[in-house]
Amino acid sequence: MDERVREHAEVLVDWSARVEAGDDVVVSVAEDAHELGVAVAEALGERGANVTTLYGSAEVSRAYLKGSEAGAEDGDGAPSFDDDPAVERALFEAADAYLRIGGGRNTTATADVSSETRRAYATARQAVREARMDTDWVSTVHPTRSLAQQAGMAYEEYQEFVYDAVCRDWEALADEMAAMKDALDAGEEVRIVTERDDAPDTDIAMSIAGRTAVNSAASVAYDSHNLPSGEVFTAPYDTEGEAFFDVPMTIDATRVRDAHLVFEGGEVVDFSAGAGEVALASVLDIDAGARRLGELGIGMNRGIDRFTDSILFDEKMGDTVHLAVGRAYDACLPEGESGNDSAVHVDMISDVSEDSRLEIDGEVVQRNGTFRWEDGFEG
Amino acid sequence: MDERVREHAEVLVDWSARVEAGDDVVVSVAEDAHELGVAVAEALGERGANVTTLYGSAEVSRAYLKGSEAGAEDGDGAPSFDDDPAVERALFEAADAYLRIGGGRNTTATADVSSETRRAYATARQAVREARMDTDWVSTVHPTRSLAQQAGMAYEEYQEFVYDAVCRDWEALADEMAAMKDALDAGEEVRIVTERDDAPDTDIAMSIAGRTAVNSAASVAYDSHNLPSGEVFTAPYDTEGEAFFDVPMTIDATRVRDAHLVFEGGEVVDFSAGAGEVALASVLDIDAGARRLGELGIGMNRGIDRFTDSILFDEKMGDTVHLAVGRAYDACLPEGESGNDSAVHVDMISDVSEDSRLEIDGEVVQRNGTFRWEDGFEG
Repeated sequence: MDERVREHAEVLVDWSARVEAGDDVVVSVAEDAHELGVAVAEALGERGANVTTLYGSAEVSRAYLKGSEAGAEDGDGAPSFDDDPAVERALFEAADAYLRIGGGRNTTATADVSSETRRAYATARQAVREARMDTDWVSTVHPTRSLAQQAGMAYEEYQEFVYDAVCRDWEALADEMAAMKDALDAGEEVRIVTERDDAPDTDIAMSIAGRTAVNSAASVAYDSHNLPSGEVFTAPYDTEGEAFFDVPMTIDATRVRDAHLVFEGGEVVDFSAGAGEVALASVLDIDAGARRLGELGIGMNRGIDRFTDSILFDEKMGDTVHLAVGRAYDACLPEGESGNDSAVHVDMISDVSEDSRLEIDGEVVQRNGTFRWEDGFEG
Repeated sequence: MDERVREHAEVLVDWSARVEAGDDVVVSVAEDAHELGVAVAEALGERGANVTTLYGSAEVSRAYLKGSEAGAEDGDGAPSFDDDPAVERALFEAADAYLRIGGGRNTTATADVSSETRRAYATARQAVREARMDTDWVSTVHPTRSLAQQAGMAYEEYQEFVYDAVCRDWEALADEMAAMKDALDAGEEVRIVTERDDAPDTDIAMSIAGRTAVNSAASVAYDSHNLPSGEVFTAPYDTEGEAFFDVPMTIDATRVRDAHLVFEGGEVVDFSAGAGEVALASVLDIDAGARRLGELGIGMNRGIDRFTDSILFDEKMGDTVHLAVGRAYDACLPEGESGNDSAVHVDMISDVSEDSRLEIDGEVVQRNGTFRWEDGFEG
């Protein structure tokens, strides 16, 4: 076995999920994630944990949902699902940790399941989802050929990309991100400026006073449930100015490029996109909250150096910031206060590696991608 | 998808497990059994059942057990396992049915796990096993290349073999087996005689008075948990005579051929084998019960026409009978009575398709493989 697979398993079990002897661990293994499943089972055995292995197959899910559609007799085309699936609820209620290993054979394996059926199934499984979220859950992916294809990369190239992102010195990165969190927690206003010859300028300011940043360090100990992670995020408000997003994104299966947003009084008042402008417009029109920011995120995982069309990786990319229109995360808000609310949360990413700066209360914290605590920082 | 896979899934879900709308069904999918897993999920969706899918990977199991060995710190080489694995117990306690789909990539995938570790693991999982056996459980296999290899067959040849065995008119076979069961239940003595030029004679008699035969018709409705099945079996005693077993078998990883047993007063008093005689001797020496019969079985599945070194198929082969030394099944005994007891139960199979007869109380029930209720029977 490739030593990187074992290292990935150890990061997942030890750093991310903090598994200890006697823990009851549920592992979900996707179709082509067998190898990482094997390495994780070995690590769990070494730690003295109990393991139950689920088959996280998108093709099995599709077959079940298509079968349910075929079997639905109520005539409205959408099958009804048991709203208390006892087995899975019991499973997750008894579990201490849940490790989801993605990585199937086809990222569009469930493309022909109707959105009504998906919604009905997701709604019926609310109790299962809640039981699962109550565990120490972590989501990761095994690098498969289908994910390489989605990223537009060769298989071996994609493997290197994933292991660079996952197999890091997480302790050191968590410390560095703690410095970023402290700066955001102490600050009242963030300003991001980018002046490049080849792209529209970004000059946008937002308030973060009273908000708490999250150090998302790829570990349940940091309330962070993705591996890889590597971002610090907070919930801004009262946004003014304009921002250009040069990293592509996918909204409702449409590729959106070169989005440009103009904010006044905290709301988007004008927008454009080089491609996919209609998809962008439909998001901004969903509700009032979709025109306000829900998140400011600072990508700090320098193992992630390129866009791969997967939000698990993209939003943590080093030398980027992202702004999300829509819903804010409760963890960033004062106890009892509700932040921006919306049915959507759409992340948009900007490269800040060149000709750019991020200021907190007028003080430059990051210039051209380099943070003020790093060598080479030019205040 | 191959239509035979769908048919296999439908036999499993409808005939074998009797799944109904609202049932909570746990499906275990082995490494290379994906296709049957997909077909079963589709059928379960159509029936309106809930499904939870486990990954029944022998390689994941091996990794967990090897990891446990490596992590064992008590120094005696055998790891200790949690004797109440809460997640899996909760899972099976909440389940109505359990469908195990075997068929991995390597039938010897766990060969390097020590027997101490296997035993410790099996012992610790007693409660899980009991919860699983309390469901409507059914075990089947998807025809994989590794099972074809074990059977000594080409892949497509093996697929045809499996589907011939599984996709039968089970209703008709169950009726036919009911006739065999009735004959055994009404009888007091069974005699099996085979006189062939190319093999030692068989002439063996045993009492079945007071015993109840089981119609093993591959369905939980018949208390039968294997797909395929297709045998009728009972628990004989007071065996006299000798029997020759021309179908090979595997005892403790040793191939045993042409076993010959001589019974007096219900016990084996002499034995020989053309190959593997030492392995046969070691079984017979395990305890007193290992020298007495625990089972007489009549193989009635004519879809199984050859030995494939898999007891799931071999003992149900049409035109065969099998005798097992060792433990008797409780289902064959009067309430409260205990039958032959032993740590082992080893099936030995004889071809009865030619020059042979099976008599109950002196009346011929099967001659040269043909039962008395079939065309061509020569009483």
